[in-house]
Amino acid sequence: MTDTQAPSASLAEIRSMLAALPGPGEGARAAAAAREARLVKPAGALGRLEELSSWMAAWQDRHPPRLRRPRVAVFAGNHGVAARGVSAYPAEVTRQMVANFVSGGAAVNQVCRSVDADLRVYELSLEAPTADFVAGPAMDDGECARAMAYGMMAVEQGIDLIALGEMGIANTTSASALCLALFGGEAADWTGPGTGVAGDRLARKREAVAAGAALHAGSGDGLELLRRLGGFEFAAIAGAVVAARFARVPVLLDGFAATAAAAALLRVDPGLLDHCQIAHLSAEPAHARLCAAIGKRPLLDLGMRLGEASGAALAVGVVRAAVECHAGMASFDEAGVSGPA
Amino acid sequence: MTDTQAPSASLAEIRSMLAALPGPGEGARAAAAAREARLVKPAGALGRLEELSSWMAAWQDRHPPRLRRPRVAVFAGNHGVAARGVSAYPAEVTRQMVANFVSGGAAVNQVCRSVDADLRVYELSLEAPTADFVAGPAMDDGECARAMAYGMMAVEQGIDLIALGEMGIANTTSASALCLALFGGEAADWTGPGTGVAGDRLARKREAVAAGAALHAGSGDGLELLRRLGGFEFAAIAGAVVAARFARVPVLLDGFAATAAAAALLRVDPGLLDHCQIAHLSAEPAHARLCAAIGKRPLLDLGMRLGEASGAALAVGVVRAAVECHAGMASFDEAGVSGPA
Repeated sequence: MTDTQAPSASLAEIRSMLAALPGPGEGARAAAAAREARLVKPAGALGRLEELSSWMAAWQDRHPPRLRRPRVAVFAGNHGVAARGVSAYPAEVTRQMVANFVSGGAAVNQVCRSVDADLRVYELSLEAPTADFVAGPAMDDGECARAMAYGMMAVEQGIDLIALGEMGIANTTSASALCLALFGGEAADWTGPGTGVAGDRLARKREAVAAGAALHAGSGDGLELLRRLGGFEFAAIAGAVVAARFARVPVLLDGFAATAAAAALLRVDPGLLDHCQIAHLSAEPAHARLCAAIGKRPLLDLGMRLGEASGAALAVGVVRAAVECHAGMASFDEAGVSGPA
Repeated sequence: MTDTQAPSASLAEIRSMLAALPGPGEGARAAAAAREARLVKPAGALGRLEELSSWMAAWQDRHPPRLRRPRVAVFAGNHGVAARGVSAYPAEVTRQMVANFVSGGAAVNQVCRSVDADLRVYELSLEAPTADFVAGPAMDDGECARAMAYGMMAVEQGIDLIALGEMGIANTTSASALCLALFGGEAADWTGPGTGVAGDRLARKREAVAAGAALHAGSGDGLELLRRLGGFEFAAIAGAVVAARFARVPVLLDGFAATAAAAALLRVDPGLLDHCQIAHLSAEPAHARLCAAIGKRPLLDLGMRLGEASGAALAVGVVRAAVECHAGMASFDEAGVSGPA
């Protein structure tokens, strides 16, 4: 890893953590439901905002839920499979974009400012990409576990919501292969334009997806598939999802690659993403299929397909509105408003 | 009108205004397109955020577009048709909710705080509801024109986006009748639960919608239908839409009632809502039908059905993110990022 003390860890240690996941705070959830019923509006009239305030209460295990310190975390990694020419952009763009995040020139910087969220960028060994998953596993056990542990470090104390996204040239190829291995179907079902590939390049991408999934599918549980087909940033996102569960920090997942990384965890425990929302529906076509496969409905649908946590950051504003409505609205009694006739 | 110097106006004067509507700023729109193409992201990757920054530039006639002073305006009115028992709530709730807006206890207060928007509440003659549209026109010419002129006053100088919503017990009945008269179909197509009516009450609501539309449809242009079937808050919203066009202030329309009020203007000029976006898709079923009828796709779909501009206020945050991305992102050259291979 670059710029960090790589924690030592193994996937076996991480698997043992996953055997003791905390569940939702049922008391906080019940308190949210009781308060929601008294607020001055027709029952259910705030739609998904009501769902979000209940979800925040349950997974923070706190009532009323709080949103003072949202964090947006972008994990950047490079991919051996990029050498197959599966992306519209050269691999050096990953590092160039990290520099752009740091200097404030990317979309996610602007969105974070507009929703008043803290942005952190984590780069994972950009000079040493993962191995090409068409030829063998993308990561060895220690590499995958260290990337997961690195991702866990993004969930610092005091954070009350974390939005997870990624940057990595060729990483939709990795996401597609991972989805194909996890959920089956055809390579074409899961392979799309990414940053904008078409024609021969798209055909090469589809071939890499098919070959990678054929080589690795059935090789083990979700962590094993993540190790073999994911990238460092995928492992880091999965690690952050796990750490957030223990730290009682609800999670917003960005588009296709971030959702695919998290989806691998469902093969370990089908409830492992209950503390996560899909922030937005990506325009990358496979994202809709993936959301359906994991039974989650994205909060926003704005035709975005940029990655870099830009959609997840935007959804922070929706969660904030939900939390503020829940905490700040008057009850019918307090407002002196007549109830239904 | 309460609490205001009622401006004197006639619908004929307003019709003459509508003959000279300003169009989009084509120079600003072209400048936005040129800048967008250089920003450091794959073309189109910000989806509707790109559409929104272009739309803001065109209708503000300014590049880059600006969002420093968004206003959320809620218009409140009472309806004679409420006496037919078409709502789940008694008519006095309109005034009670206005008091709640003023004291800060409503959902829209919390949403406005969360998106840093200014909230103004305009009450229109709550002690003297419109006439029952089943028996005759809801408003006379002067009443409708004065309500429109009052709505125009919400578009004050310096505002750079306005979100329009309403409060008015029984006003989905009025919206349904107006839509039926404007777009045809059956009363059942346009009539839904509103604040939560069902059974006998829903049947009464549907009957009022059918009877009102039968009495008034075909009686004249959109302003005439607005006068006959709308309410004071509908006329005020239509007035604000018109004033915003002249003041170069883009508009976000809230749910079913606000969209219905604005839709009446399309019967005067089919381009009259080009400076408006539908902020969110209401869970009131007729809203989807109405959006399809006027060819607009809502920005958000969060199952909200509260009115009071709560969904429109939430969308202010989306527009802000769009404007900030457009203005603040680096170009490929500035960021030193390689373009597509």
